[in-house]
Amino acid sequence: MFGPHEGGKLSIAPTVPLGGRRDLSIAYTPGVAKVSRAIADDAALTARYTWTHRLVAVVSDGTAVLGLGDIGPRASLPVMEGKSALFKAFADLDSIPLVLDTTDVDEIVETLVHLRPSFGAVNLEDIAAPRCFEIERRLIEALDCPVMHDDQHGTAIVVLAALRGAAAALGRDLEPLKVVVSGAGASGVACAKILIEAGVEDVTVLDSRGVIHTGRDNMNVAKYALAEQTNPRGLRGDLTTALADADVFLGLSGSTVPESVIETMADDAIVFALSNPDPEIDPAVARKHASVVATGRSDYPNQINNVLAFPGVFAGALDASARRITEHMKLAAADAIFRIASEELGVDHIVPSALDPRVAPAVAAAVAEAAGADGVVRTHVAEVATDG
Amino acid sequence: MFGPHEGGKLSIAPTVPLGGRRDLSIAYTPGVAKVSRAIADDAALTARYTWTHRLVAVVSDGTAVLGLGDIGPRASLPVMEGKSALFKAFADLDSIPLVLDTTDVDEIVETLVHLRPSFGAVNLEDIAAPRCFEIERRLIEALDCPVMHDDQHGTAIVVLAALRGAAAALGRDLEPLKVVVSGAGASGVACAKILIEAGVEDVTVLDSRGVIHTGRDNMNVAKYALAEQTNPRGLRGDLTTALADADVFLGLSGSTVPESVIETMADDAIVFALSNPDPEIDPAVARKHASVVATGRSDYPNQINNVLAFPGVFAGALDASARRITEHMKLAAADAIFRIASEELGVDHIVPSALDPRVAPAVAAAVAEAAGADGVVRTHVAEVATDG
Repeated sequence: MFGPHEGGKLSIAPTVPLGGRRDLSIAYTPGVAKVSRAIADDAALTARYTWTHRLVAVVSDGTAVLGLGDIGPRASLPVMEGKSALFKAFADLDSIPLVLDTTDVDEIVETLVHLRPSFGAVNLEDIAAPRCFEIERRLIEALDCPVMHDDQHGTAIVVLAALRGAAAALGRDLEPLKVVVSGAGASGVACAKILIEAGVEDVTVLDSRGVIHTGRDNMNVAKYALAEQTNPRGLRGDLTTALADADVFLGLSGSTVPESVIETMADDAIVFALSNPDPEIDPAVARKHASVVATGRSDYPNQINNVLAFPGVFAGALDASARRITEHMKLAAADAIFRIASEELGVDHIVPSALDPRVAPAVAAAVAEAAGADGVVRTHVAEVATDG
Repeated sequence: MFGPHEGGKLSIAPTVPLGGRRDLSIAYTPGVAKVSRAIADDAALTARYTWTHRLVAVVSDGTAVLGLGDIGPRASLPVMEGKSALFKAFADLDSIPLVLDTTDVDEIVETLVHLRPSFGAVNLEDIAAPRCFEIERRLIEALDCPVMHDDQHGTAIVVLAALRGAAAALGRDLEPLKVVVSGAGASGVACAKILIEAGVEDVTVLDSRGVIHTGRDNMNVAKYALAEQTNPRGLRGDLTTALADADVFLGLSGSTVPESVIETMADDAIVFALSNPDPEIDPAVARKHASVVATGRSDYPNQINNVLAFPGVFAGALDASARRITEHMKLAAADAIFRIASEELGVDHIVPSALDPRVAPAVAAAVAEAAGADGVVRTHVAEVATDG
């Protein structure tokens, strides 16, 4: 018995009256013909006269669902419905879960290309690495609309915001921090990238085989790229080696870290133990050796939760009629989250609450502004139809 | 300005509370993991714990939209949104418009096969003949769920119900009526078929080149099949020839019929002039020579409107967990509509009002019962999960 999930978590609500004969003739035939004809004459009117302008497709193939792994598209649906519910609750965006009974990259891309007129943006979710990188890249190219893999960039945006918050709470600068990222899956790769873009100079990433460095072989494309961009001190070895004297531990691996290793970190250490539901180290234990501790859980301080990012990012991108989501837009989203946290910053308040209603609108405004500055907004503004 | 269509006609409504931390942890992580795991263990639980069990995909490629023709998927969207709104209003079914940026049959079929876990049934809409026949047939085979092209079968069901009503109002039997169908597109083909299935012995169909008969060539597959099943008197020629002494005119062609031709029909003639928005003949003129006249319009008596059929048909099929929609289920739907009309039958009341709230539940019940009788319901009933 999973009470609230019984029957699913979404429903469709018509936004037009349909109770009477006249309602029907306006909303459906014959009235709808005028609207269809107007769109046939000017495709840009689609944004104005359909729900797609604020409609996000929440897309998954079910290959990396929560901590459960490859449980398939059907079993991923309750998560996608929940995600759609969050889009509505936090950003008043409509969205539909589309789960795919294929893990073939070409087929996934083609399916969404064929469906392109049905939605305004794509939130990729719970797709396993490294396929998720290629799928996202190809969809961004093919769809000409905002596409974002939330497990990568939603996490990265919130992590960056939280790390800014942690540094500020400790009176430190972000750039010189030595950051160790444990996990080179979707979120690990994206977090490393956004931290580098934000100016962090020393990022080291580990996968299950240890530190990623340019001397390793048999890595996927994403890891080879990471090897080039990270690990400036040329570290080799395991987490114990990497964490010695490090300033930041960013756990995204699902594994555990012994207290004795956390203990070797530099003074004023920052520990983000984000594995869910079990953090890499008990936050209370980590706190003995670190000045700031964050987790993915709501029952500890400093919850790193994607819901701080994705509703506002998509709302801002759609509000701005952005053709895509740029790196600048993601950085702007992180800044907006950090600014709200800054109002009452502390080592136990480095990010806003996941439920803070100020966050999504602030993120949306920052993302829309960045889209404008980046010149990725659609320039063709539909003429207002005057007939009918 | 198309006021009610501004911003589209649909929105998503979460059916679970999301206002607080606890709500979030139940509806999303970590709570949702238990539901996902349960579905991973037993796929049949998908029906119970997701919205797909009562979710219809309203699918179009925009090639035959209303009377507007091939206006493309974007311009078809306002119609599909209206359709989704009607599903909700009349049968409390959720549905999502999926419009396809391809007219290739293989690509349309593949797209829906890949999306299969995302919905419970498919309502095909406004797809041009003859492609609509192949698309429907192949989807029925591939998807193992209720699939129905409404332009074909929704129309056919309501036409059969109305013809039963007309015959009963005139105290005549259905079977011996000489029926002439003008138009061999999606609806013409389906209407001819259902009338034959219902026992009508003399059905003749015309396309733009005249009466369809076995001696003609250059016809599509659907018309060749019709030639075999219809026209028992071996008529050749045009509508003037066909309508002489006919009992029923069924207009589905978008063309016009002169009064002088209607005048040649048999006594107690029945005229269904269903072209929209302009019937094949002015109903008032037709009424001078026919005992029953019906149109597709709401401002004349006897409105033949698909909304009498599709909400109940899909609700019944989904309620019964039917694997497909059988001919028997369609006939049962027509009978259910006819039974409601019978309660106050008259030459100006051969079908219920399009807004009659009794219709969809009655159709749903009849369709579900027929599904059971036909043995097309899923036999695997998911175990009730007891953990959590």
